Amino acid sequence: MKTIITYGTFDLFHIGHVNLLSRAKALGDRLIVAVSTDEFNLQKGKTTLVPFEHRAAVVASCRYVDQVIAEVSWEQKEKDIRQFGVDVFVIGDDWQGKFDDLKAFCEVLYLPRTRNISSSSIKQAMQVLAQLDKELR
Amino acid sequence: MKTIITYGTFDLFHIGHVNLLSRAKALGDRLIVAVSTDEFNLQKGKTTLVPFEHRAAVVASCRYVDQVIAEVSWEQKEKDIRQFGVDVFVIGDDWQGKFDDLKAFCEVLYLPRTRNISSSSIKQAMQVLAQLDKELR
Repeated sequence: MKTIITYGTFDLFHIGHVNLLSRAKALGDRLIVAVSTDEFNLQKGKTTLVPFEHRAAVVASCRYVDQVIAEVSWEQKEKDIRQFGVDVFVIGDDWQGKFDDLKAFCEVLYLPRTRNISSSSIKQAMQVLAQLDKELR
Repeated sequence: MKTIITYGTFDLFHIGHVNLLSRAKALGDRLIVAVSTDEFNLQKGKTTLVPFEHRAAVVASCRYVDQVIAEVSWEQKEKDIRQFGVDVFVIGDDWQGKFDDLKAFCEVLYLPRTRNISSSSIKQAMQVLAQLDKELR
């Protein structure tokens, strides 16, 4: 059985997430998704609109996902790869080259992101709409 | 085979959507989800942050969903129920009583919504964060 793993925050679940999870699952038999906890995001100075428990449950409801685990630190990837017998580590190509050190433990693939779609772009669109809404009042 | 159908916009896919789709699927064997088109939303004076094609694809990626169709009018529900041999029409209980006329064609169930979670509440939270962000600059 070929096991794939990917990591992410998955705030505001969108088509870009679905496309990445679909492509990741197609690479093997089992897809494990590590969803970053709120505590880990805070360490990175990152806040999400959706709390961890909800982000994890939404990712788990995706038909391409076989298992969800919590991402709590930068260092856990090597441990996860060993523990789950991971064959392929995949992540969006906005991280191109950033995880090449994991090639010592498994295959590392950077998958193309869906153009013009990200949680950040959705939040920015929301801010523009909110501003317009205020100006029109 | 017991067929369930539900209707919605599914903008900013969240845990409330997942919970409703999971409960709906548990009522039968096949879950059909009608996702409102952008044109139909405009007729209702409603705009979404996510375009129809993306909303439909995200709903289709949910493991509880067997088929996605487009919702283009208020009148199509009776036709859909006949065409797909629907046994149960389900919708969030914020619509309580609104679709009782469909009881002439199938069972009608209003399912409890997940408390404090909606696309609107996420957008409102986003607006508050955007405002705070501006005030902090």
